[in-house]
Amino acid sequence: MAGNTFGTAFRLTTFGESHGPALGGVIDGCPPGIALDAVQIQAELDKRRPGQGGIAVTARAEPDQVRLLSGVFEGRTTGTSIGFVIENTDQRSHDYSAIKHIFRPGHGDMSYHAKYGLRDYRGGGRASGRETVSRVVGGAVAGLFLRTLDITVQAGTIELGGIAVPNTELAHAEERPFFAAHADAPALWEERIKDVAGAGDSLGGVVEIQAHGVPAGLGEPVFDKLDARLAAAVMSIGAVKGVEIGAGFASARMLGSEHNDPMTSTGFASNNAGGILAGISSGQTICLRVAVKPIPSIAQNQRTIDCLGQEQHITIGGRHDICAIPRIVPVLAAMVRLVLADAVLLQRRISGAP
Amino acid sequence: MAGNTFGTAFRLTTFGESHGPALGGVIDGCPPGIALDAVQIQAELDKRRPGQGGIAVTARAEPDQVRLLSGVFEGRTTGTSIGFVIENTDQRSHDYSAIKHIFRPGHGDMSYHAKYGLRDYRGGGRASGRETVSRVVGGAVAGLFLRTLDITVQAGTIELGGIAVPNTELAHAEERPFFAAHADAPALWEERIKDVAGAGDSLGGVVEIQAHGVPAGLGEPVFDKLDARLAAAVMSIGAVKGVEIGAGFASARMLGSEHNDPMTSTGFASNNAGGILAGISSGQTICLRVAVKPIPSIAQNQRTIDCLGQEQHITIGGRHDICAIPRIVPVLAAMVRLVLADAVLLQRRISGAP
Amino acid sequence: MAGNTFGTAFRLTTFGESHGPALGGVIDGCPPGIALDAVQIQAELDKRRPGQGGIAVTARAEPDQVRLLSGVFEGRTTGTSIGFVIENTDQRSHDYSAIKHIFRPGHGDMSYHAKYGLRDYRGGGRASGRETVSRVVGGAVAGLFLRTLDITVQAGTIELGGIAVPNTELAHAEERPFFAAHADAPALWEERIKDVAGAGDSLGGVVEIQAHGVPAGLGEPVFDKLDARLAAAVMSIGAVKGVEIGAGFASARMLGSEHNDPMTSTGFASNNAGGILAGISSGQTICLRVAVKPIPSIAQNQRTIDCLGQEQHITIGGRHDICAIPRIVPVLAAMVRLVLADAVLLQRRISGAP
Amino acid sequence: MAGNTFGTAFRLTTFGESHGPALGGVIDGCPPGIALDAVQIQAELDKRRPGQGGIAVTARAEPDQVRLLSGVFEGRTTGTSIGFVIENTDQRSHDYSAIKHIFRPGHGDMSYHAKYGLRDYRGGGRASGRETVSRVVGGAVAGLFLRTLDITVQAGTIELGGIAVPNTELAHAEERPFFAAHADAPALWEERIKDVAGAGDSLGGVVEIQAHGVPAGLGEPVFDKLDARLAAAVMSIGAVKGVEIGAGFASARMLGSEHNDPMTSTGFASNNAGGILAGISSGQTICLRVAVKPIPSIAQNQRTIDCLGQEQHITIGGRHDICAIPRIVPVLAAMVRLVLADAVLLQRRISGAP
Repeated sequence: MAGNTFGTAFRLTTFGESHGPALGGVIDGCPPGIALDAVQIQAELDKRRPGQGGIAVTARAEPDQVRLLSGVFEGRTTGTSIGFVIENTDQRSHDYSAIKHIFRPGHGDMSYHAKYGLRDYRGGGRASGRETVSRVVGGAVAGLFLRTLDITVQAGTIELGGIAVPNTELAHAEERPFFAAHADAPALWEERIKDVAGAGDSLGGVVEIQAHGVPAGLGEPVFDKLDARLAAAVMSIGAVKGVEIGAGFASARMLGSEHNDPMTSTGFASNNAGGILAGISSGQTICLRVAVKPIPSIAQNQRTIDCLGQEQHITIGGRHDICAIPRIVPVLAAMVRLVLADAVLLQRRISGAP
Repeated sequence: MAGNTFGTAFRLTTFGESHGPALGGVIDGCPPGIALDAVQIQAELDKRRPGQGGIAVTARAEPDQVRLLSGVFEGRTTGTSIGFVIENTDQRSHDYSAIKHIFRPGHGDMSYHAKYGLRDYRGGGRASGRETVSRVVGGAVAGLFLRTLDITVQAGTIELGGIAVPNTELAHAEERPFFAAHADAPALWEERIKDVAGAGDSLGGVVEIQAHGVPAGLGEPVFDKLDARLAAAVMSIGAVKGVEIGAGFASARMLGSEHNDPMTSTGFASNNAGGILAGISSGQTICLRVAVKPIPSIAQNQRTIDCLGQEQHITIGGRHDICAIPRIVPVLAAMVRLVLADAVLLQRRISGAP
Repeated sequence: MAGNTFGTAFRLTTFGESHGPALGGVIDGCPPGIALDAVQIQAELDKRRPGQGGIAVTARAEPDQVRLLSGVFEGRTTGTSIGFVIENTDQRSHDYSAIKHIFRPGHGDMSYHAKYGLRDYRGGGRASGRETVSRVVGGAVAGLFLRTLDITVQAGTIELGGIAVPNTELAHAEERPFFAAHADAPALWEERIKDVAGAGDSLGGVVEIQAHGVPAGLGEPVFDKLDARLAAAVMSIGAVKGVEIGAGFASARMLGSEHNDPMTSTGFASNNAGGILAGISSGQTICLRVAVKPIPSIAQNQRTIDCLGQEQHITIGGRHDICAIPRIVPVLAAMVRLVLADAVLLQRRISGAP
Repeated sequence: MAGNTFGTAFRLTTFGESHGPALGGVIDGCPPGIALDAVQIQAELDKRRPGQGGIAVTARAEPDQVRLLSGVFEGRTTGTSIGFVIENTDQRSHDYSAIKHIFRPGHGDMSYHAKYGLRDYRGGGRASGRETVSRVVGGAVAGLFLRTLDITVQAGTIELGGIAVPNTELAHAEERPFFAAHADAPALWEERIKDVAGAGDSLGGVVEIQAHGVPAGLGEPVFDKLDARLAAAVMSIGAVKGVEIGAGFASARMLGSEHNDPMTSTGFASNNAGGILAGISSGQTICLRVAVKPIPSIAQNQRTIDCLGQEQHITIGGRHDICAIPRIVPVLAAMVRLVLADAVLLQRRISGAP
């Protein structure tokens, strides 16, 4: 109810601020008997690190180390809750006096202040993108579970700074800079980023996520449709401003005869639905795209106000990411894995465990 | 968990199939003392009727009458659960043998069959858009509550069949055909619909929803961000394939310096955020847009399969809507009202009732 | 969150006041394919009627008729939500002016007033025992599901007005007056009731509930232990003031060597645990007992206060039950069935459907 | 859903096994601005230590140190989730081969094995009473919040090994051995424990918990009555086999005229209701009692079976507690605090924050 728990049957509860002692969480509902070790989780976490997914579009070094505290015995999950912690190693006492009373544009400073009456102003506190480390750990455990059912999730960048890939190849995205969905894109994007960084500005982009091997029948009717759950999952990530499933916004301009995916004895002839019919998976590849806004922390001078409502100007110093991509890509994959693990478990009440 | 409940503090649970005896639901958590009578609810329900929101793009007559069964005493809510029922008056025994074993393309027939192993094949059963009558009733009650706080929700069509409005005017949308967001649009859309209807085809569109008077501080951090809740709410409606908040997908092509909304002593200077910062309302107008796919029931001959996986052809007879717009518009407004009523109550645990 | 929903995977949401137009609810999560018709549900509902379960300890005639509105197709559940309604046929405009401003001792009048600031004073409104009709319907559906797994629930009265049965025989309790757990008890209880009724007073008692055929492994560790769920389920019924599992309060006086149930190759040698070990079912018969307080509506003159806090006297007229037994007995069985149906579905995420 | 989360608005999620690396949890929903430091939490945790609450009825030394990881800034809660960890310092590699394949009578070994198919056999794993350290931390934070509203919770032992206190004095229970509810009891209980310990056996008892200063109006009607929540809360602790509110089981033997608490202009004239009417707090002291079973680990030889169902004998070595009292007493108080903090926040959606 207070927003720090995701999922129903496969459930992740997280905690932690960008500059507190540690971040972490509790994974509840993971079935017993899943092979699990910290090395596998760590590998997923490392994908979110600066420098991963291609060239360094971030300047911060965060050697995030996950420590599993429970729920695993002799290398397998026991079915009980899995606690984990990631220490904040870089807790130097920075000087935050510059932003203590000033609301940074595009950040949650103003809205958190309105909500709670007080806020942890150090680096965004709970509203910092740093909280996503816990999502990645949760998603990694979900992924290990899904792998036992041959369900896999891939994510890749299909547009950055207004430059789209010519076509989408997610299979190798993980090996490319920016998790690019096409081999030609990174060079163009790198140049674009350099230009924008030089101007003290920032960029956004579009990421596509696909889930393969998802059986038909997942998702719940009416309010908890699989696409509704996926939309909530990705929209809950700070930088995401839009989400579309299958043909998405293009659907609004299609005719019914174009949009309907014909069914044949060998499967669907197209996938405008994005693998979901009436909110329930159809057995096709699940496909969604999200819009990622530009990083709000920019080196340019901006107009804003302080806690008292008085006008101020702010120039955000330090070394900030120029784009939430590529670091957001493994986070998006993690959220989709959490949704699917949850949907698989919910469906077991009807069809049973495979 | 089985998908028929929406919300946490202000909660709607619904039931009903398109051709069952009745539809209805339970509204739980509405604060006590709200003035409420069935006439007000009925008015909202009537907006969803064929012929409403402009010219008849549907041919079915459904005089939906809501009956309140509890939770109201001497004209005011008591704080206990509000049960309601809408009888299905038109329960003639149609002949559904044509679609009993065949999966209609673009419908949930195939995915429901995969999920449950059996299905109510009469007109889509629970997957029918008819279930949205219960959402409208729930949203109407939420709206009466929000009105006591001067929070209002408006929705209007900004694009239909590929024809967009020149600019958006939601204030009078409710009075126009198609709930059009501009006075010039209906004539163009009507013509487009006639052409497409003549070809036995169908259309989609885009709807914008705005919430005015929303105080800053609503929404929960991390997973239950206000935009995540809104995205889930609208994506849970059958025909919706995409949702964007504020600048939405356009954000992906903007620079940080363009996207950040400057704050001044008299308020924000722009609203690319769509009224939500870090998942929490900022006090600005909340603004979202959804993509509505074309109606899947078309009069053209389509390829499909039956329950046994054998290829079939289907031409869907009867008189179906050509476009989910305008009927989906009051449903979208209802869902946004439900999200906001919930968020208001959740925030009271911190800031108290106004 | 507002109290009108019970269960997680098998979920009942109810509505209705004692003197409103109707009561009812929504059952969500019942698996598809369960044979279901209103006659079977009605039979369970009839057990709660005055005159059932033995001699008339109530004077009110309530021919409660349940009407199923959804979720059932061709005689079987479809897996979607099951809506139901029970009309309040006896809605004559009684004169409630006597209790409009006065709080009846032992009733929720005072606490509801404190909670909501207003209340439906007609016969207790939502706090009336009349709401339990919806529980019985939900429990009946749960029972039909459990029967497919050979899980059965029995309930019987083991003490009334201080007179306990010599020993407990639940197998035939349903056929006896008061759902008595022993054939000799009804005659003694009938006499006791007559005496007390003559004095304008009321009585309580103790009910035992057993569940047979429950497989080992149901219940969740730590907070959602099966006994915790059962305790909440029965304690949520208005008249219940205590609950014990297995040896219950007697456990507090036993030695560990007495209390521990030895395990043998043919099963447990005793059942002090009541079929639950560490919150998880052990495969033994689940056994619990609840304390039922005397009916608070009595014909004697009582001291009380009104809404303004001023002292008043009240004598509750009309024809009221002398004892919540036997009518509470099928309600208790219903609640236990709801808990078990929920636990079965939750366990399927691990072990799969049988 | 998997059992490791308690509460709705004030919510505790826990993890940890008796012999894993660490235990801990996440507290979600604590309002912002509550003064909080680890020293205060630690003080509550220390009450659960062996040797506390009187003479050592346990022989294990567990210097549990709580470490707060988030949600607190400059000494006050921020409204975001509070993560905490308690390291298991004594993680020597014990030899558990004796119980690896054998089910200890009265423990969850058998039922956990049935549920999960595998289990962490080291000291009971997740089923160990050691998990209650996380409850105490959660309850301590809840207590700090409740204290700002002048709501306090007291708990004390009223019976041990069959020896009851002559009358109940909870105000000073915390200062006495065994958290005894009367000054004369500890000496008698100590003697009883010595005798039983000498015989290799164990004991149970009864604990009373009272909540003072609880305003009228807390709790939700129908299923989430305050007494239902309290019953679930305390019954979720491993050793508890029964719970009663107010007059409890004695109510079953009372007349209505005896049981009803008369209301006067200066308050209630008695408290058989235990402070709860129709599931909603009445403003009186909330009063409940729980039955604590004897510790199942005993030094005597017991009959049991192994994983293969073959008969075995077991004598549980090591140094075990003789009685769950006194260590369970602060755990019971913690659970009641969690319920009340939750109820306070839920009521704010109606009445607002004070």
